Amino acid sequence: MTIGCHARAMDIVIAIFPDFTALDAVGPYEVLRMLPESRVTFAAAARGIVRTDSQVIGLHADAAFDEIDSADILVVPGGWGTRAAMKDEALLDWVRRIHATTRHTTSVCTGSLVLGAAGLLAGSPATTHWSCVDLLESTGARYTAERVVQQGRITTAAGVSAGIDMALTLAAQLAGEDMAKAVQLAIEYDPRPPFDCGSPAKAGERIKELTGMLRELPGD
Amino acid sequence: MTIGCHARAMDIVIAIFPDFTALDAVGPYEVLRMLPESRVTFAAAARGIVRTDSQVIGLHADAAFDEIDSADILVVPGGWGTRAAMKDEALLDWVRRIHATTRHTTSVCTGSLVLGAAGLLAGSPATTHWSCVDLLESTGARYTAERVVQQGRITTAAGVSAGIDMALTLAAQLAGEDMAKAVQLAIEYDPRPPFDCGSPAKAGERIKELTGMLRELPGD
Repeated sequence: MTIGCHARAMDIVIAIFPDFTALDAVGPYEVLRMLPESRVTFAAAARGIVRTDSQVIGLHADAAFDEIDSADILVVPGGWGTRAAMKDEALLDWVRRIHATTRHTTSVCTGSLVLGAAGLLAGSPATTHWSCVDLLESTGARYTAERVVQQGRITTAAGVSAGIDMALTLAAQLAGEDMAKAVQLAIEYDPRPPFDCGSPAKAGERIKELTGMLRELPGD
Repeated sequence: MTIGCHARAMDIVIAIFPDFTALDAVGPYEVLRMLPESRVTFAAAARGIVRTDSQVIGLHADAAFDEIDSADILVVPGGWGTRAAMKDEALLDWVRRIHATTRHTTSVCTGSLVLGAAGLLAGSPATTHWSCVDLLESTGARYTAERVVQQGRITTAAGVSAGIDMALTLAAQLAGEDMAKAVQLAIEYDPRPPFDCGSPAKAGERIKELTGMLRELPGD
């Protein structure tokens, strides 16, 4: 490729913080990183290993927030670490600064609480993990029970696995429907969940109560 | 919890190697780590950072293969690093040794090529990423175009995102249907892909050809 002749890279920054949920970040990553000219960077308060909510995964942040001053796409994952992130003024300032430069500012799961705490969702429709609706609304957002909610430059996704659907939606907007379809095929995203209980309405109260017995909910 | 009185932990080992595909590993992780008493460990040839196929993600292996001599569940992800893994005799020996101890030995995407190279799939039905059918069959497996294929103690999943469906299937077998449903609700796995093209049959030839323009296919 001749220098000066190639398309500009599309910079995708995924912001991570202690106790984020791995799939919230890795779902969108796996879609967006396949787009031609995409360049994905995991960033955190400091370079180095960041542990997820379960502590099982240590993911390396290759950049510190203060090394990044713009992005085409910003992705903020969720996890119970968002509770601390919502009060982290340095992080919120950085989110606001990066948002001023993006084409799309996005969140998965409780990542929308961070966008809300940064003041980006006031009066706007947005979504989050089903267990954190009140907390989302406390930031001024209007909770919308959809898988992917787009309002202007901000796109929020529902819990954890919804980030894959969100990223494919963005992929179509960024690179065209055919390219998004090619990514969907590449990751063989032809879902066959063994049960039909992926939303509170479908799962019912008994299963919803059972989630309390799990090791940990993303919104806990 | 009183020592001696609690259920034995269920050890889940996810084997990673250079150039694995992140979502292959993180999908099953996010499901299985929520099960009560589960204990997930990412293991590699040596402790330390292992880079994925895109090089974007560095994931920390908290154990070396030679520190692990048994597992209840073994998960082998795919990615183009499986090409080297298929010829890595130390890794294949370890896979065989661990398999002798497991309740379930599993793979996602081209991870089944590693199980095949270890001699675990001879004559058995199995699946893999749609782009690697011939390579899977070269190990003696019989390719089966299903999302999740179970044969005895071995479970193989189709490409990348299929690991989530596989892990929920296993979760039901390990912890009961209701607990699997609770995990599905916890990760809000109520998929809404924007297109219906997640398999080669649905996507058609033109989209299949377009995958060649992506940054990289898991089977490349």
